Amino acid sequence: MTDTWTLHPDRALPADPVTRPIAREIYAAVQDLPIVSMHGHVDVDAFADDEPFPDPAQLLVVPDHYLTRMLVSQGANLPELGVGPAGAPGFEADPREIFRRFCAGWKHFRGTPTRYWTEHELVEIFGVTVRPSAETADQVYDQIAERLAEPDFRPRALLDRFNIEVIATTDPAWSPLDAHSRLAAELPGRVLPTFRPDPLLHPARATWRGDLERLATASGIATDTYDGYLAALRERRAAFVAAGGLATDHGHFSADTTPLPDDVARTLFEKAFAAEPDTGGAVLSAAEEAAFSAHMLFQMAAMSAEDGLVMQFHPGVLRDHDPAVAAAFGPDKGYDIPVAVDFAQGLRPVLEAFGNSQSFRMIAFTIDEDVYSRELAPLAGVYPALRLGAPWWFLDAPDAMARFREAATETAGFSNMSGFVDDTRAFCSIPARHDLARRVDAGYLARLVAEHRLDLDEAVETAADLAYHLPKQAYAAR
Amino acid sequence: MTDTWTLHPDRALPADPVTRPIAREIYAAVQDLPIVSMHGHVDVDAFADDEPFPDPAQLLVVPDHYLTRMLVSQGANLPELGVGPAGAPGFEADPREIFRRFCAGWKHFRGTPTRYWTEHELVEIFGVTVRPSAETADQVYDQIAERLAEPDFRPRALLDRFNIEVIATTDPAWSPLDAHSRLAAELPGRVLPTFRPDPLLHPARATWRGDLERLATASGIATDTYDGYLAALRERRAAFVAAGGLATDHGHFSADTTPLPDDVARTLFEKAFAAEPDTGGAVLSAAEEAAFSAHMLFQMAAMSAEDGLVMQFHPGVLRDHDPAVAAAFGPDKGYDIPVAVDFAQGLRPVLEAFGNSQSFRMIAFTIDEDVYSRELAPLAGVYPALRLGAPWWFLDAPDAMARFREAATETAGFSNMSGFVDDTRAFCSIPARHDLARRVDAGYLARLVAEHRLDLDEAVETAADLAYHLPKQAYAAR
Amino acid sequence: MTDTWTLHPDRALPADPVTRPIAREIYAAVQDLPIVSMHGHVDVDAFADDEPFPDPAQLLVVPDHYLTRMLVSQGANLPELGVGPAGAPGFEADPREIFRRFCAGWKHFRGTPTRYWTEHELVEIFGVTVRPSAETADQVYDQIAERLAEPDFRPRALLDRFNIEVIATTDPAWSPLDAHSRLAAELPGRVLPTFRPDPLLHPARATWRGDLERLATASGIATDTYDGYLAALRERRAAFVAAGGLATDHGHFSADTTPLPDDVARTLFEKAFAAEPDTGGAVLSAAEEAAFSAHMLFQMAAMSAEDGLVMQFHPGVLRDHDPAVAAAFGPDKGYDIPVAVDFAQGLRPVLEAFGNSQSFRMIAFTIDEDVYSRELAPLAGVYPALRLGAPWWFLDAPDAMARFREAATETAGFSNMSGFVDDTRAFCSIPARHDLARRVDAGYLARLVAEHRLDLDEAVETAADLAYHLPKQAYAAR
Repeated sequence: MTDTWTLHPDRALPADPVTRPIAREIYAAVQDLPIVSMHGHVDVDAFADDEPFPDPAQLLVVPDHYLTRMLVSQGANLPELGVGPAGAPGFEADPREIFRRFCAGWKHFRGTPTRYWTEHELVEIFGVTVRPSAETADQVYDQIAERLAEPDFRPRALLDRFNIEVIATTDPAWSPLDAHSRLAAELPGRVLPTFRPDPLLHPARATWRGDLERLATASGIATDTYDGYLAALRERRAAFVAAGGLATDHGHFSADTTPLPDDVARTLFEKAFAAEPDTGGAVLSAAEEAAFSAHMLFQMAAMSAEDGLVMQFHPGVLRDHDPAVAAAFGPDKGYDIPVAVDFAQGLRPVLEAFGNSQSFRMIAFTIDEDVYSRELAPLAGVYPALRLGAPWWFLDAPDAMARFREAATETAGFSNMSGFVDDTRAFCSIPARHDLARRVDAGYLARLVAEHRLDLDEAVETAADLAYHLPKQAYAAR
Repeated sequence: MTDTWTLHPDRALPADPVTRPIAREIYAAVQDLPIVSMHGHVDVDAFADDEPFPDPAQLLVVPDHYLTRMLVSQGANLPELGVGPAGAPGFEADPREIFRRFCAGWKHFRGTPTRYWTEHELVEIFGVTVRPSAETADQVYDQIAERLAEPDFRPRALLDRFNIEVIATTDPAWSPLDAHSRLAAELPGRVLPTFRPDPLLHPARATWRGDLERLATASGIATDTYDGYLAALRERRAAFVAAGGLATDHGHFSADTTPLPDDVARTLFEKAFAAEPDTGGAVLSAAEEAAFSAHMLFQMAAMSAEDGLVMQFHPGVLRDHDPAVAAAFGPDKGYDIPVAVDFAQGLRPVLEAFGNSQSFRMIAFTIDEDVYSRELAPLAGVYPALRLGAPWWFLDAPDAMARFREAATETAGFSNMSGFVDDTRAFCSIPARHDLARRVDAGYLARLVAEHRLDLDEAVETAADLAYHLPKQAYAAR
Repeated sequence: MTDTWTLHPDRALPADPVTRPIAREIYAAVQDLPIVSMHGHVDVDAFADDEPFPDPAQLLVVPDHYLTRMLVSQGANLPELGVGPAGAPGFEADPREIFRRFCAGWKHFRGTPTRYWTEHELVEIFGVTVRPSAETADQVYDQIAERLAEPDFRPRALLDRFNIEVIATTDPAWSPLDAHSRLAAELPGRVLPTFRPDPLLHPARATWRGDLERLATASGIATDTYDGYLAALRERRAAFVAAGGLATDHGHFSADTTPLPDDVARTLFEKAFAAEPDTGGAVLSAAEEAAFSAHMLFQMAAMSAEDGLVMQFHPGVLRDHDPAVAAAFGPDKGYDIPVAVDFAQGLRPVLEAFGNSQSFRMIAFTIDEDVYSRELAPLAGVYPALRLGAPWWFLDAPDAMARFREAATETAGFSNMSGFVDDTRAFCSIPARHDLARRVDAGYLARLVAEHRLDLDEAVETAADLAYHLPKQAYAAR
């Protein structure tokens, strides 16, 4: 390694000498298309306040659970990476020290997308000139820190530099949407809210009663009855629509969407609500909780068919696999583990009811690869309301993305895909992620061309569809 | 695109410059082998009557649910594609208009096998000279229509032109086999019936009682008792054997084959039979229905071990996922969705009983890719009675076929495969399907040669086995 | 084929001309690293007694269920391959005749790892000069037999020739470890025992009561109470540690590790123990049996956290799929079939308890490929105690190994793998297996380099990690 670190222009394109030049040509045609980031988790305040990002560790390491989980798997603990309550034993407050630990563990990221994205960020965005290691950690830190102090590295400037045409944030159902109101005036149509009601649809969560109150406050509708609860949800959805929102976002354990008879749902709500607030709704049995959540997914679909919000659905994650970690450090710390999902039977009630409707759209994401060819592609290949989301989360990686194309395209075609979304809270990784997806798609399409299964003009058009036009279409208001 | 549309001779062969020439050599050795089409759904009357095919839309679009489902997923509805009852609102009777809708949606088939097969058919069979599009639709239509009027395009002439040595149809258990009798005289050994008893093994279906009566009529054996029912099934199997049939065909939701004690099975039959005909056998609980169907699969296996009919089994499809579509337009309209299957435990009773027998043969198909390496290849790699069917249905596609080879061969070898079958009702797609399979197999074998895992002479011999000899052996009467 | 049979130096490396030279370079760097064989089933007496191996059939054919199962699937029966009780009808006692049957079936191994390994053994170890076939069988037999008579072909000489630094055997919990004691003196640190308690943790097995007595005898602790049973297991683990053992080995049907309350476990033990010895513990219901076995896995994990033995876990096999074969010929005859496994929920209790501990290590193996990207890689990518075992059993094959790398690496990285293990009782196949794994890994890493996702120096270092350093680290005493 020298200290002139550069990225190869052909990275992540197929190696085969027949396919690579075709891939290059396809990639060149989409490389500079604007970024449409319709599913992500960057904090809206970053854009509303437009403050400089903090230090390199707080920007790149601490909030990125892809990255901290790998270091944890190799023996680090979360506090020494600056994660968790500031007062906890071993908590590291010095960002430079945290960054050193990350650089010392650089080897462990080999073969992972974290490595790929981070390289892209360091070289392309921050102009870092040396590969991270225990020895170079301070040099890399300083190079990034210097950049972060410049005005060109504030969020709104980066929004332009990254060529982001539109970006969606994810917001609680009870969000007052103040920041979005300011942004609607200052950056019209550029930063959109997404309605995420998950905690309100799970009475067993300890926060449920408190969240119901937040919902009541935000909506101005009492949530102490089932009807009020539904009305308040409907009101907030309307507020999101008014604020430019195009979509909702739903993460459930199961894909079940079976509706309950109204009186059964009402009774479950009342039973959960009657429990002492400090027990949450834990008075529901596990089966009742699951049935109520499934029922509420159906209600969300029904409301989407009315108000046109696109329903993003990504079930199949066992959250907080180690509850002790969640208790000590909070959620989203890398201990969320996928489980098998049954989309064919789970989505059936919603698709029977709304799957052939032009006023409803669902985009389904999964981290259970089995369902691509078995369930999701066959479903999306017939129901007009269903689109397949990009390979999600752990599967947002070069080989996994290629497997998705290979497994889903032959049955669902390209037109039933919703195109790439980055699904990230790591703002500076967004260009890297979209660029990588465009490269992988170029490689897949190039193979189809090289195998004479597609003409080059079609491949170029399809690459642009996947990168730009399909997400625009898929997330358009219904 | 110019108006001299041709297909590349290397299509669907690997792009890599080391592997492609080897693949070409392997493919050349099998390209012209006769077609053995032992599992398909072409209507026997096409051959018996040998009438000209109707217009291009009725030949290529309307009956092909692969094709109509993709157009539906992109916003078309079935009546405007000529599917469903002729009087229905929006029903399109003009074949040219239907064909225009298909050509206008040509883009949506990119990357799918429908695209690949259709190209082959249009160029190789019908001599079409322009790529389909909204603009060229009428020209393509006319070119096909002109051909269809020629005597060389009647079914029997095409049977020769397609180099089809033998083709199996699929026929209800109660079929009188009249058409097959005529064909046995006129085209001896060329068109064979396949015994499909599914509706008779599912008492919950609304048609069950009516189908029992059809069975009674065809067999001359009363089916109002369990013993009569079994005897009638056995009689019809014998009739299929007499008519040249070599196989049975079974599509069930589950892979379960657990037999019931005789008296339990008898009681379930009597309970279902006693229900009012217009409720079908819905008097059985879902669990009873499933148990009875599983039991009857075991009975079918037992009869196969006696009469030598090869038992084709392809479980794991949730039929009529949207019941409203089935009610309005009938079954097989593209709304059948795969589900996960447990072959390891499901097939156990049949394999325990007959799996080591030389007089029994089962060929298992799936659209659940997970089971290739986990269950099917390990089972076929030890039980002499079991062969693995070709990648089925949605998996009859270039990348999916390659995945099947990669996942199944290392454990099951080639000798435990049954070779390619086309499983289609689209007669004119048969050469395209077999040709594509031969190309994909040539590519897979060429990689083994290029990686020095197989010698070229072995690869050539294996390609011929997969294309021709293995289906002949696998479907030979036991 | 000529009679100068050789193996191509590039075998199992990628064919693509850009990737192959890189793969060659990576492979060259690891080709001669010592073999670390930490999970295998070679009989310890082979090394303790150092007797010459018997004839070619007894060495290569009869004990290898990969090989005999394929011949069975093609119509052979086990007795004619010399498998099963010597007096059985059709039992073949002549090794030359058995070897002829194997050579005559050589074709059926095309595309399988058995073919690949056997080629390597025949050419590289035994200097065989002709490809096996019905015609060459005797010549091949004689060439091998001649070698086996030479002193250089005794087990200890081969241990050196194979460059095996250390090899672990698998031993019943009640093993007196006599052979290991001798080996500790004569070949210190070279042949290590592995503690396998499976039959003791499954009260329903017919051998359970007898095995409990064996445990009592070996440990000197009465096993007629639950506490005695646990104490005796703990004592034997200590004996294995004292004899140099580094690991335990656990094969269960399910991945469930849920502990029971102590009194419930005690009651189940007593209930099973109270049953008449000749019924085994079959007095437990299937659910009780499963719960007890899961509980005991948790106990084994707890003991591993105390004594530092690495816990190897490979669930998900339905043993003796055809019970009649097991009854006639014994276990491990090729009729063990994988089933789907739920690692995410199954391992949760153990990982909650010990997953973040530095004193516990679990290595998880599977033959259910679905769980690589869905469950195992996400789990190993965060829990420091968990490492992913090599692709196991049917998946120890070139394409399957490549799929493992592709599916697991992007989420788990390389550092959370335990490297290659051969898991074989076929001693002479060990070099072939390790060599093949090194080639496949070189190919995978070469692709990452060719796609500019990894630098060459990193790839070379990683290849050495996978081949040598990671197994050393993963199996180091905790």
